[in-house]
Amino acid sequence: MSAIEHRLAELGLQLPAPMAPPAGHEFPFALVRVSGGYAHASGHGPADGAEYLMHGKVGDTLTVEQGYEAARLCALSMLAALRETLGDLDRIAGWVRAVGYVNCTPWFPHTFVVANGFSDLILELWGEAGRHARAAPGVAALPLEIPVVVEATVELSA
Amino acid sequence: MSAIEHRLAELGLQLPAPMAPPAGHEFPFALVRVSGGYAHASGHGPADGAEYLMHGKVGDTLTVEQGYEAARLCALSMLAALRETLGDLDRIAGWVRAVGYVNCTPWFPHTFVVANGFSDLILELWGEAGRHARAAPGVAALPLEIPVVVEATVELSA
Amino acid sequence: MSAIEHRLAELGLQLPAPMAPPAGHEFPFALVRVSGGYAHASGHGPADGAEYLMHGKVGDTLTVEQGYEAARLCALSMLAALRETLGDLDRIAGWVRAVGYVNCTPWFPHTFVVANGFSDLILELWGEAGRHARAAPGVAALPLEIPVVVEATVELSA
Repeated sequence: MSAIEHRLAELGLQLPAPMAPPAGHEFPFALVRVSGGYAHASGHGPADGAEYLMHGKVGDTLTVEQGYEAARLCALSMLAALRETLGDLDRIAGWVRAVGYVNCTPWFPHTFVVANGFSDLILELWGEAGRHARAAPGVAALPLEIPVVVEATVELSA
Repeated sequence: MSAIEHRLAELGLQLPAPMAPPAGHEFPFALVRVSGGYAHASGHGPADGAEYLMHGKVGDTLTVEQGYEAARLCALSMLAALRETLGDLDRIAGWVRAVGYVNCTPWFPHTFVVANGFSDLILELWGEAGRHARAAPGVAALPLEIPVVVEATVELSA
Repeated sequence: MSAIEHRLAELGLQLPAPMAPPAGHEFPFALVRVSGGYAHASGHGPADGAEYLMHGKVGDTLTVEQGYEAARLCALSMLAALRETLGDLDRIAGWVRAVGYVNCTPWFPHTFVVANGFSDLILELWGEAGRHARAAPGVAALPLEIPVVVEATVELSA
């Protein structure tokens, strides 16, 4: 068992199915694109396959805590896609950058706290190698009214 | 004639002039920045030179279909800039990542459908090499009230 | 004295303290992440350490000129973090890409003018090597109600 899978099990976490398009749609993009020693993950929401697990706008229909949980689910969905593409999450040597887009109201001040749901889990799993550059803009809307989407780039081991 | 130019002609498409600043403004940035085997394209709107071809907000003054068309025009504008910088679009070996910013209303759920206007065209032109990682946030505003802006990174052939 | 530090002094500019979390918070991410000859800077606001120097929404409580000044302060904050991580700003051979997120009203058309506050300063300091690919989306919200956040990637000298 890989080290990261072991750590996920220790935390009592299971990965969902990789994100899939909602009924009637296709994704004309890649969940993960590998290039030059890096893997670039598309924007991932709180999804289990084609089922989107949370909907709403933080600061309106969702609390900060719910937003944080949504961002954590984004991480799990992204890890599922990375595992599928890379074969083994241990191939990820480090996390380089991420953008956490938070679907929120126009004066919501805590987007960074919401995005921590993603970053905290990555640090729990990879330790300091998981520490990435990050931005956490609050956006007007996200696909299917989901509350958070995170995209990221990881460095692969040689 | 390059393979991509040939494919553009087959599709009946002509590239516009590279995006230019509106009157009275300058761009203190590069439309395309090449570094380390990659070209990074700035956010491109539906533009022909300094003429911005569509304005409005998807879900309000524009339909999803109009947003999709705007995203397709973003791709053409970006290709014009890439051709100018690279000399030949065939130097693009693959598409790595893109972010499609969709100017939309606060509960608009179809940003990903709008951004497909960009991704679908890239796939039509490059096939599977065009399949990129992507995010499609819905944003509050974009320059000059244009409906879509797409930025992207491409891998250059060695 | 390094060339960039010299240029900063010529312009009468001093770098603030690197951005720090507001009281009661931690940053589970890196201000700057170095990987493969590049440094990736997290989203930086107009900050001096844990003090956030400007708040508000451009087009509502702030003017375009104030937004421009905020973006310039984002650059200074980012340079402080880059200097801390890299030891010397002269290690930055060029600027590759940046995204300037502008906290603004839903029909604000001048996000690109606001983001110029960042890009203009980078060009003043690095000349043409500072010319980067850029996007300037207008977003619904930013951490702590700050008006601008900029993230960027720079190329390091070999």
